[in-house]
Amino acid sequence: MTLASVAPAVVPVDTGAQRYDILIGRGLLDASSTWQGLPRAARALVVSNSAVAPLYAARLRQALAGRYAEVSVLELPDGEQHKDWPTLNLIFDRLLADASDRHTVLFALGGGVVGDITGFAAACYMRGVPFVQVPTTLLAQVDSSVGGKTAINHPAGKNMIGAFYQPQRVVCDLDTLRTLPQRELSAGLAEVIKYGPIADAAFLDWIEQHLDALLERDAAALAHAVRRSCDIKARVVGQDERESGLRAILNFGHTFGHAIEAGLGYGSWLHGEAVGCGMVMAAELSVRLGLQPPDFAARLRRVVERAGLPVRGPDLGADRYLELMRVDKKAQGGEIRFVLIEAPGRAVLRSAPDARVREALAACVA
Amino acid sequence: MTLASVAPAVVPVDTGAQRYDILIGRGLLDASSTWQGLPRAARALVVSNSAVAPLYAARLRQALAGRYAEVSVLELPDGEQHKDWPTLNLIFDRLLADASDRHTVLFALGGGVVGDITGFAAACYMRGVPFVQVPTTLLAQVDSSVGGKTAINHPAGKNMIGAFYQPQRVVCDLDTLRTLPQRELSAGLAEVIKYGPIADAAFLDWIEQHLDALLERDAAALAHAVRRSCDIKARVVGQDERESGLRAILNFGHTFGHAIEAGLGYGSWLHGEAVGCGMVMAAELSVRLGLQPPDFAARLRRVVERAGLPVRGPDLGADRYLELMRVDKKAQGGEIRFVLIEAPGRAVLRSAPDARVREALAACVA
Repeated sequence: MTLASVAPAVVPVDTGAQRYDILIGRGLLDASSTWQGLPRAARALVVSNSAVAPLYAARLRQALAGRYAEVSVLELPDGEQHKDWPTLNLIFDRLLADASDRHTVLFALGGGVVGDITGFAAACYMRGVPFVQVPTTLLAQVDSSVGGKTAINHPAGKNMIGAFYQPQRVVCDLDTLRTLPQRELSAGLAEVIKYGPIADAAFLDWIEQHLDALLERDAAALAHAVRRSCDIKARVVGQDERESGLRAILNFGHTFGHAIEAGLGYGSWLHGEAVGCGMVMAAELSVRLGLQPPDFAARLRRVVERAGLPVRGPDLGADRYLELMRVDKKAQGGEIRFVLIEAPGRAVLRSAPDARVREALAACVA
Repeated sequence: MTLASVAPAVVPVDTGAQRYDILIGRGLLDASSTWQGLPRAARALVVSNSAVAPLYAARLRQALAGRYAEVSVLELPDGEQHKDWPTLNLIFDRLLADASDRHTVLFALGGGVVGDITGFAAACYMRGVPFVQVPTTLLAQVDSSVGGKTAINHPAGKNMIGAFYQPQRVVCDLDTLRTLPQRELSAGLAEVIKYGPIADAAFLDWIEQHLDALLERDAAALAHAVRRSCDIKARVVGQDERESGLRAILNFGHTFGHAIEAGLGYGSWLHGEAVGCGMVMAAELSVRLGLQPPDFAARLRRVVERAGLPVRGPDLGADRYLELMRVDKKAQGGEIRFVLIEAPGRAVLRSAPDARVREALAACVA
């Protein structure tokens, strides 16, 4: 649990229209250099949640005090089930109560839910104010804080209401992972594992070799996992910000995963847990479509299970799974489009006969 | 009330990132050529309101049937007081109930409220689907449908939650103005009048000369007014899509006007009525700051009054006006920034001492 010193790394993201940096390192929260060059304003608002704010909000506020005359903190309720309009509106209420103008800078301090909802608030408040991602979970550091996808959920589907809106900067302080509950660490590992099958076969090998070190929060292992994940994500997002093609591969496991989350009700499983199980389902489907030999699904099932993630899905019934997946954002004219694996390190987007999907589900449902 | 034949006009809008056309003419709704070249999709959703849908929704649906296999119509409640989250959510509910995908095209058929709310729904649904503006009020044709400002209101301020999101096309069928209630025609004239003082002194002269013809819905006069207004707006928006500078001049009269709307509660005055009165207030402020001679305010008051618009504001108290204006989107660090007139045809953005604002209000409040 002790973290050795890790040199800070900078991963640039360039979408063509915007360019910003992901900073990865230890002790970044308190270092004034971390916040240099951000937009100036009279006010900043730190948006966090009831789990993270008590740990880090005061330190972030202190670090920002030299740059912004007024720094407020807003604490949202914690959990995916609060990634909705009433919670989003708490941010608008606060911004307006503070008479925040269109220069006010928002800081999203927390995990994926805080980042997605704060980013969407920044995209919409007065039609757009600057914001900074300060992810404190592994899942947010390796995935959700990077790339400008912001959203809230609708009862009928996850992330259905949102915007592509890029942050000014992403600050991944690895020290914040020390306080992460083990269940959330595992959830974050789901998104780390994802990058292997879709983009980097050697990284999948590395993960298998270092999974115990990651679970024990070895500093060097975590630093490499975050860095490599951000490298891959930045490259993909730089080529396709708005998911007209390539970017969809980042949703490996997410079509099944979103169905699990919506089917059980948001907040029942963690997003990363649903994605972990969803990747096993997508691997089984890849096998059933003849894209991969059966041992590929077994390999993925093993690494997901070792990461402490569920590999058997809830028994919603195959019809319900199919119904929920038809409203996935990648669906087109009612046809579900799955991210499947052609070869370790190479993903493809395609549809599948319902019968094959049912077989894949049958292989994975408790 | 008879409309002579008017040749269709095309006004291009080019924001750098996007380019689209405003079509202005008669009989556009039913002409299949009007809809050529729009994005293809399995589905289209026409969003309208309870006043406009019975008049035009069936015709639009018919015109689109050749292009989209499924065309649904959603009727929203009518009025500025419904430009809020619950109404916006009716659009999301419908899109999801129809299993609409990210290619579905939205058509905003109605006035400014329908256009703003439908545009914002298009900006947010699955992080962005294409939409087309089909404005049926004078106000929407000359102002709100052009330029990509979309939004809903927050109880604490008008248009506080929204996005810059450009339509694929704007279709101004002048025939739809025949069914417009007279009060709404006057409200639209407020935005027409606006373009004179801020950008075109000769257009202000023309408006004064043709105001009776406009009020009588003379076809040629309306065609010229819509065309010239769109020309000016397209030019301004093309130079400054996101209102970092120049575009703010389009808000002449709106800072005071928004305070009237918020102070009375949305839907009490029409937006155009508040803007008409707000322009008189802004003219009075321009005079009190020595930017214009007193007869300029008198001139503007006269033309606004002749258009059938209120020139005396509600007695909210000057403190309340100031408080409401401090949350205006143009405000910066709590300082209100007014659009003022330096010379007929030339606007400037600047702050003003509270004492001068109080004087201007005193000259205009009942």
